[in-house]
This record gives sequence, structure tokens and C-alpha cells, in this order.
Amino acid sequence: MTESTVESIRDTTAEQVDAIATTAAAAAAAWAAMALTDRAKVLRGLADRLDAQATELIPLAMRETHLSEPRLVGELRRTTFQLRLFAQVVLDGDFLDVRIDTADAEWPMGAPRPDLRRMNIALGPVLNFAASNFPFAFSVAGGDTAAALAAGCPVIVKASPGHPELSRAVGRLVHAALAECGASSGTFGLVFGRDAGVRALTHPAVAAAAFTGSTAGGRALYDLASRRPVPIPFYGELGSINPVFVTAEAARTRAAEIASGLLTAVSASAGQLCTKPGLVAIPEGAAVFRELAELIRNRPVPTGDLLNAEIAAGFTRAVEQVRAHPNVELLAGGGPGEALLLATTARAVLSDPDALLHEMFGPATLLVSYRDSGELLELARSVGGQLTVSLFGDRVDDTARALTAAAVGTAGRVLWNSWPTGLSVTFAQQHGGPYPATTAPTATSVGTAAISRFLRPVTYQSVPEELLPLELRTDNPLSVPRSVNGARPR
Amino acid sequence: MTESTVESIRDTTAEQVDAIATTAAAAAAAWAAMALTDRAKVLRGLADRLDAQATELIPLAMRETHLSEPRLVGELRRTTFQLRLFAQVVLDGDFLDVRIDTADAEWPMGAPRPDLRRMNIALGPVLNFAASNFPFAFSVAGGDTAAALAAGCPVIVKASPGHPELSRAVGRLVHAALAECGASSGTFGLVFGRDAGVRALTHPAVAAAAFTGSTAGGRALYDLASRRPVPIPFYGELGSINPVFVTAEAARTRAAEIASGLLTAVSASAGQLCTKPGLVAIPEGAAVFRELAELIRNRPVPTGDLLNAEIAAGFTRAVEQVRAHPNVELLAGGGPGEALLLATTARAVLSDPDALLHEMFGPATLLVSYRDSGELLELARSVGGQLTVSLFGDRVDDTARALTAAAVGTAGRVLWNSWPTGLSVTFAQQHGGPYPATTAPTATSVGTAAISRFLRPVTYQSVPEELLPLELRTDNPLSVPRSVNGARPR
Repeated sequence: MTESTVESIRDTTAEQVDAIATTAAAAAAAWAAMALTDRAKVLRGLADRLDAQATELIPLAMRETHLSEPRLVGELRRTTFQLRLFAQVVLDGDFLDVRIDTADAEWPMGAPRPDLRRMNIALGPVLNFAASNFPFAFSVAGGDTAAALAAGCPVIVKASPGHPELSRAVGRLVHAALAECGASSGTFGLVFGRDAGVRALTHPAVAAAAFTGSTAGGRALYDLASRRPVPIPFYGELGSINPVFVTAEAARTRAAEIASGLLTAVSASAGQLCTKPGLVAIPEGAAVFRELAELIRNRPVPTGDLLNAEIAAGFTRAVEQVRAHPNVELLAGGGPGEALLLATTARAVLSDPDALLHEMFGPATLLVSYRDSGELLELARSVGGQLTVSLFGDRVDDTARALTAAAVGTAGRVLWNSWPTGLSVTFAQQHGGPYPATTAPTATSVGTAAISRFLRPVTYQSVPEELLPLELRTDNPLSVPRSVNGARPR
Repeated sequence: MTESTVESIRDTTAEQVDAIATTAAAAAAAWAAMALTDRAKVLRGLADRLDAQATELIPLAMRETHLSEPRLVGELRRTTFQLRLFAQVVLDGDFLDVRIDTADAEWPMGAPRPDLRRMNIALGPVLNFAASNFPFAFSVAGGDTAAALAAGCPVIVKASPGHPELSRAVGRLVHAALAECGASSGTFGLVFGRDAGVRALTHPAVAAAAFTGSTAGGRALYDLASRRPVPIPFYGELGSINPVFVTAEAARTRAAEIASGLLTAVSASAGQLCTKPGLVAIPEGAAVFRELAELIRNRPVPTGDLLNAEIAAGFTRAVEQVRAHPNVELLAGGGPGEALLLATTARAVLSDPDALLHEMFGPATLLVSYRDSGELLELARSVGGQLTVSLFGDRVDDTARALTAAAVGTAGRVLWNSWPTGLSVTFAQQHGGPYPATTAPTATSVGTAAISRFLRPVTYQSVPEELLPLELRTDNPLSVPRSVNGARPR
């Protein structure tokens, strides 16, 4: 370890945080005003640099996170794809939501309508709390950073303590990509340490924050953001159990397939995914239980080490809490570095939801046996806010309809015959959901719509053409999509 | 007063509030699932009923608010127009933001993209705190109610104490309009009293709240909403001074026009508008000062009584605070029922902003003389979050450009050579702004975009056609606008 890398993992001091926040605020206007083509160029340049440095970054990430090489290679690919996708979002211009009302003396409201032109602008410096479980995709150059930079906001990342060296290395690439396009270095900042994160969150220059992590940690930060003299939007993605409901038919006809899919979903990335299924409801006595026990007995499912000691300790505590419940038994697994299956009944969950609807962040899940579709539905309606709810079924019947309705009422993403762990970065993706899944159910943290979190609308009334931004000028020199007098974008 | 009207102004009890909230939650699914055409019919039916009852409602509003008949007639017209506009928004379907990603095995993220279909759904029961100053447009059947019902959310209105009889009368019309289309009466509820509002805000069944009123009151409610075990979005529109910056050229060439426009803007509705200009920066020694003093001396500007005793007392306190400042002097007016002009300097405001950037909700404004464009710009950059900033200028020069940039940085609506008091209900309107103008700078409370506050997105992954809502089915039976694979709506 060189002198400079030792220095890199020291906590950022309060004075340094203040300087970074002030510099970000000073850089905000120039970054927001940079041409959309240049903003896109920065995002693509960053993706190119990450790709070019993969051979150095991947081993660094492996050393710091214990994640496997294939997993990290895939994650890096996802990360650079995401940056390029947001570059495209910037160029498309839909995110500006440009609306133009021409002056109308006969506007039926009863008073003439003035010339009104509305577009989204950057909210200001955004603070992103990096997650430990995705050292690329939800970290320094991850989704929140891509979305905020795309929106025209400077970004400050509070690095995850789980991969400080990698954070620092990626941070250098962000600075290089900005510099190449002539953007100020204040457009991006990186801070280390819990206190530094808190100080940045309460700094007057910070305009919004995004977070991915635990419910307790996220709620504490949300509370800080809300209690500021000037409260700011806090987009927290907190806890989710991601329940899976297996209907009687599916359990009968596809026991082996469901059993093996479940083991993969629970053990992939050592279960350290915010979309890992933590509760799987299966009919009492179904073959799935036997299939699972057999699969795991024949060949324990290796999960690898957890990300770090703090995550491992949290996992052990969470598992112990659930396992200590009088109605919970060990079904299979649970040796060191091995997936763990616990079992209970729907009745037990319904009568003690606080104890049993409890996220275990790691390779464990709770199998819940139910007696009939009435009990299954009751359970589906009781699980609270979730990122995902997955349904396995073979028929479109009343149960399927009722389960789907319950799932839509409680989750941001509803899946049929699919495991929730795969999370595609797309236009129609939704990664969010009612509390405690997130603190902002109206938003998503994955997919192109994630950019909306960092924008605010401004309307220009009767402003002379020459003072309007190009996006709002009558001749539309940038050809951005615009709705005019309520008609759809064109 | 009949027995029943006496009862109507009693505070709603805690038990009644709980029953109303529970009933709203029970009504939520059916209202959200009602056909868009029926939802639109309810909004139009409510508008028709308000129009039909105008001859009873207007005198009731006059008696309770002291507002003039023409003002209330205009406001009712605005209110029914707004309801019909939201009916149109519902039918257009843009608010659903439907996005469809078809399955794509070659998706360049590195993993196949599943079939993903995303749309906005209703957030759940919405609590609206009615404002006192717009007994129709920002009250029981006002903008927040129209937007929330349009979104598919049940609505609970906490009535303004300023017009309880009118609130009750309009509440009956809401119920009648819902009943006519077969919607449950639980879709709408009305509560009276401060404690009832607090209880509703903290009730688990309530999913979001909207508020228009004072900074102190709004912040207290925002804090309650954020501190709930399950925090909810709180869309508060709080305080704004709505600064007006008059350039040297405009002051020279249009002194009389600016002076008379200002008096109208300050005194209309007795200054009880959230967009009343409360600070007007004018060049030192400009003719505008003389014009104003003369206008007001020759013919005191009558404002009529304030809305109620509480508003009047608040206005007196706020004026006294500003007037007590050693650098503030009385320019003109200030007799009973008369507009009041105070005067100070830009230097005074810049050196004591907390004391002088203070909303006076009523017919008063603070004229601020500045020495040069440097001081004007410094002032424009110091005013904090605002609903509106208005600029009066004759030339597009560096000062104009810098003023516009400062205004966009601090306000939700930026006007040129126009007074901010007119607030058109349109597609491109923005009524909101950085804190303390609002608690949610990303949102608007007026205009068609106001519906977004009460929606959350849900993505369906690989869900069978028959289980998808009609809006997401491949054959698009409702012909809603949809973007497919990132291409714009069509």
C-alpha cells in the first residue's frame, strides 16, 4: 500500500466536506448549462474509462468485496451500459418535459392565458450514499451518479466503507471524464466516513440525496434530511423482503424448477441483493419443500464470503432473530458459507408479522407454508411495502387476479414466474416501492426514469425569446420533444 | 342557522377522523379501478354541480370570507374550469406515463431484458389542507382535490376554518357527483378542526398530503408527515415574497405603468394571494416612487376587509415587524382597509435578510431602492426560495441575462414585464419552488402536472396479458399514449 492509498481511506474532515460542498455549489450553474451533447459525452467518456481500466478495477473490487470475478465483470458491464443509456436519455431530451402554452386571449378559465414555457432544470448538488453490495453499479459511478450527472447536477458520493480503494480509483476516472469535456472538477466530489456523510447531508449547498442500504441507516439519514432548516428530497431505498407467492398449481406442476430457481435466487451474490427473496409462500406439504431439502442436502449451496465483517454480523443477528421464533424451524443449510432455509407457517407470520417479516441481508430465506388460497391472499395483503412481489402460477383465475392486485398494492415491481433478483436497466424499469422499500414511493432508483429525482420544473412567463433557454425557444433549435398547448410531445 | 349547520362547524372527533380515513382506504381500490371515462365524468359532474349552485354558493362565500362578488364569481369559474381540465387530463392518459419494454435477448446490459410494462397508479388516500384565501379554487373542490381525484386517489379535505359552511356545502356536491357515477361515498371525506387535521395526517391510511398556507403551519405539518412511522409525501406550498426587480431602463420609461400595476397587484384580493409581490426593487430616486406616493395619496387603494380575524392579526404582526426595522420607512398608505407601501434600501435587506425578507400576507409591500445593477443582482441572488420572481426590463443585456439566471435559480416561475398575481391553470404552469416556497421543489400544485404528486409507478414483469391492466395490454384497447422501447409516446 502506498502512502497515497493509505491517505485515501482516512475519513474526510468536516472542513474538507464543507469545501467539497461549496465547490459543488459553485460548479452547479456551469454543469447545468453545459450543452446536452457535452453532458452525454462526459457520461460516455466515463463508461469508456471504466471499460479501459477493467483489468485493474476488477481485481481491486474482488479484494475489497469478496465478490466473484464473473459477478464483478457482469456488474461493471451493467454499470458502463447504464452510463451510456443515461447519455442517450440526455440526448433524447424527454427528461426535460418541455411544455409550451401559447398566449390565448380566449382561454376558458376566465382570464387570458399568457405565454408559458416550462421545462425541468437541475435541482443542484446531489449527495449519493454508495451501497456496499454493488461496488460498481450502486457506487461511485453507479446509477445514482449517472442519473444525477445526466440531470445536470454536481454529485458528491459518500463512499461505501466496504470498498474505499475502488471508490477512490473510480472517483479519479469521474474527474478525468469531466476534465476531458471541460467541466469543473467541483462537479464531482468523494467523501469517506460516516460523519462526513452526515455533514454533507446537512450542508446547505446539498439539494437532494440518494441512498441504498439498510432500513435503520436509511431512516436515520431520511430524518436528518427532513429536519434540516431547508429540508431536501431524500430518495432512500431501504429494506425489502421481496415475497414470493407460489400457487398450489405451480407448486404441483413445477416443484423441481421452483426449488432450484429459489436456491439460485437466495444464494447469488451470497444473498446480498436488495431484491433477494426473503419469504417464499408454498402450499403446506408441497413437493417443493422436499425438493429443496434434497437439493441442499446433496450439494450444499456455496455462497462465498459475505461482503465484509459488518454485513456478516448483521446477517447473523437477523437470522438469529428469525430463527429464535418458536414457530420457526431450520429446513436445510446454514453451515458456513452456505445458503440457509428456515421454515414457518402463514399463521405464524400473520400473528407475529413484526418478528417474521424481517429482512435477512444474506443467503437466507423463510419458507412459509399456507393451508389454502384464502390464507395465501391474507399473507399477500399483509407483507407491507416491497421493492418486488413475485407470483408463481399456472392459471389466470380468481386467486391469480387477487394476488396480482395485492402485489400491485404493495410493491413497485410485480413479477410472474420469475425471480426478482435480476434487475434490468431499461426504460420501463421500476426499482422502488411503498415504505420501507423506499422513502419516496413516487420515484425509481433504477432505469431511465431515475433521472426525474434530480430535476425541478421552472415556468417562464412572457419571457423574451433571447432570454429563453434554447429548449424553450419557438424555433426549437435543439429539436427537443415538446408538448404544445397540451398536445403530446413531437 | 339550522340545527344541522351548527353541527357542521363542530370539530370532527378523533373517532370520526379514524372512521373517515378507514373508509377512504376501503374505497381506494374501487376508485383507482374505475374506468378513466367514469373518473372524468365525476370531475365534470362536480363542475356542473358547482356551476348550477353558484347563486347559493357565492353569497355563502361572500359572507364567510369578505371577498367581493366579482372575485368569487371569477374564482368559481376558475375552479370549475380546473375540474374540467383534469377530466381532460384523465381522458388523455399522458399522466399514466405508460412505458413498455419488449423482451430482448440481446439487450446490451449483458443479460436478456424481460418484458417490462410500467405505468403510474394511484398513491392512495390523499389529505388536502384547504386554504383560506381561495374558498373555491384552493379549497374543498379546488386544485388539490381535482388532481388527487383525477389520479384515482380518495380525498379527505381538512376544511379551512375561514369558510366552514361553504366547505360543507361544496362537500355535499362532491359526494353527489361521486354517487351519480356509482363511486363509494368513502371516496371523499371532510374534516373540521386543527386536531382533526393532525389526526388525519398521522393516520396510517393516509398516503400523501397537500397543503397551502403559512410557512410556520406548513412546516409543522411537514414535520409530522416526515416523522410518521411510515413517512408520506407532503406537498406543502408555504411562504413566498415574490420579489419584483425593476431595471433602470424600465423604471425610466414606464414609471406610471409600473406604479399602477404594482398597486393593483398588492391590493387585489386585499393582498391575500400567495403570489402577491412583497418586495419590489427599484432604482434609487426613480420616478416610480413618486408615482406610487402620488397615486396612493390622491386615491387611497381600498382593499376591503381581510379574510378573517386570524389573518388580520397575522398581517398586523408581520407589518409591525418589518416596519419596526430602523431602515424601513412608511412610503404611503396603511390606513384601515388600505394598501401599505414600506420602503428600505437594498443595503439594508442584504445586511439583515432575516428581518426584511419576511412575508406580509395582506395588502403591503416593501419597496427596495438599489444603487446600481451590481446591487440589484446581489439582491436577486439573495432572496431564497420563491414561487415567483418577476423582472421588468426593456433590453436584453447582461443585466437582464444575469437577473433571469438568478430568478431561475431561486423560483418556480419567472415572469417578464408581468405581475405574478395572475396564475393561469394550464399545461405548462408551475406553482412551486425551492423551500420555503414549497416543501417539494420537484412538484407543482397548479396546472395539469399537479396530478403527478399523487401517483406512483409500478412495473409488471412477464405478467400474462389477461392479468395486465388494460393500459398495459399489447393491443392497447384504451389507446393510451405509450412509449415502447424508449421511443416517445404515440
